[in-house]
Amino acid sequence: MQASMVSFEGGEGAGKSSAVAYAAECLREMGLSVVVTREPGGTGLGEAIRELLLAPGDMAPQAELLLMFAARAQHLQQVIRPALARGDWVICDRFSDASYAYQGGGRGIDQHFIATLEKGVVGDDLPHLTLLLDVPEVLGLERARSRGAGVDRIEAEALTFFERVRMAYLQRAALYPERIRVIDASQPIDMVQESLRQHLLHYHAACRRAVPQ
Amino acid sequence: MQASMVSFEGGEGAGKSSAVAYAAECLREMGLSVVVTREPGGTGLGEAIRELLLAPGDMAPQAELLLMFAARAQHLQQVIRPALARGDWVICDRFSDASYAYQGGGRGIDQHFIATLEKGVVGDDLPHLTLLLDVPEVLGLERARSRGAGVDRIEAEALTFFERVRMAYLQRAALYPERIRVIDASQPIDMVQESLRQHLLHYHAACRRAVPQ
Repeated sequence: MQASMVSFEGGEGAGKSSAVAYAAECLREMGLSVVVTREPGGTGLGEAIRELLLAPGDMAPQAELLLMFAARAQHLQQVIRPALARGDWVICDRFSDASYAYQGGGRGIDQHFIATLEKGVVGDDLPHLTLLLDVPEVLGLERARSRGAGVDRIEAEALTFFERVRMAYLQRAALYPERIRVIDASQPIDMVQESLRQHLLHYHAACRRAVPQ
Repeated sequence: MQASMVSFEGGEGAGKSSAVAYAAECLREMGLSVVVTREPGGTGLGEAIRELLLAPGDMAPQAELLLMFAARAQHLQQVIRPALARGDWVICDRFSDASYAYQGGGRGIDQHFIATLEKGVVGDDLPHLTLLLDVPEVLGLERARSRGAGVDRIEAEALTFFERVRMAYLQRAALYPERIRVIDASQPIDMVQESLRQHLLHYHAACRRAVPQ
């Protein structure tokens, strides 16, 4: 069975971190070798870029987009492609759909320019499965802010920014319903986890059927 | 007379820094208000990106390219466009031709992808005049290394890398002979300066003829 890349997407407070940890546990229980990583980040350079992205101060929207893709290029070369080549499954906390949502929807950058970057940088290495944790932005922001940690440059945006981010994520899901599965993340956590588990089992079974063991 | 952007390009040891200082002096003597800046850099974010670019370690070629354009996007928004709008002349130590030379020629990234980035990020804000200080790469590297400072990640490349950089610069000059003027930087410095001064005077006179005072 071919190794797969599973990405998790969603706005602030959607519960991505705990979903990623839970998904890794599920895949490991299925006997798979799993690499968990995140964007922006996942490499030394990527984490340094993440710091630049989250630091306060004015940033040109295109600079933000290009920094995201710079971190992604490094991530693909150093972590994701080697892991898939070894046969490991990769779980990525955010990937290029996030650029369409945050820099496209949120910042208003032309989606075609983002698509050109994605084609040049990511090529055919899109996630095989994307789980979008969807939550109304008001609820998500309440959750994120109740965590008590400081607010970074992106979390400090206005509510309308996060409405546009959510809308762009839902548009992506509507465009790519086979790859992107939407999970209602306003449900209690055990229901979110059950939904997530079902998606992973279903996807894994489809992979096994596709390539006879 | 409209404010103009003049970029300086060239490989290692071509004498860009002193040429930039000399050009600023020339333009100021003509009574112009001049902003001198550089790439990567020119802004707080750009200088932070410059540090990432020059630090030792493996970097994906596309990450290098995208970091350059991220710094450029910030530079355009924060420094270059406002300066031109105020009527200042901008002298930039490297601009997007350097991406074609270093990441295109040097690293082998597809020139069409670079052109797409340039179109999306720079748009019509290309330099009005580009002075390419051309020097055989062996001589340039000897000069650069005799400065005695440590060698950064890019200066540590092999000679063949700098041959490809020089070739790509000369190809750019051949494609855009009206904008890019080549100066033989292997000449003694007073001859380089005289050539530079003539190019600036000639360009300035052409600007004055174009827009009656």
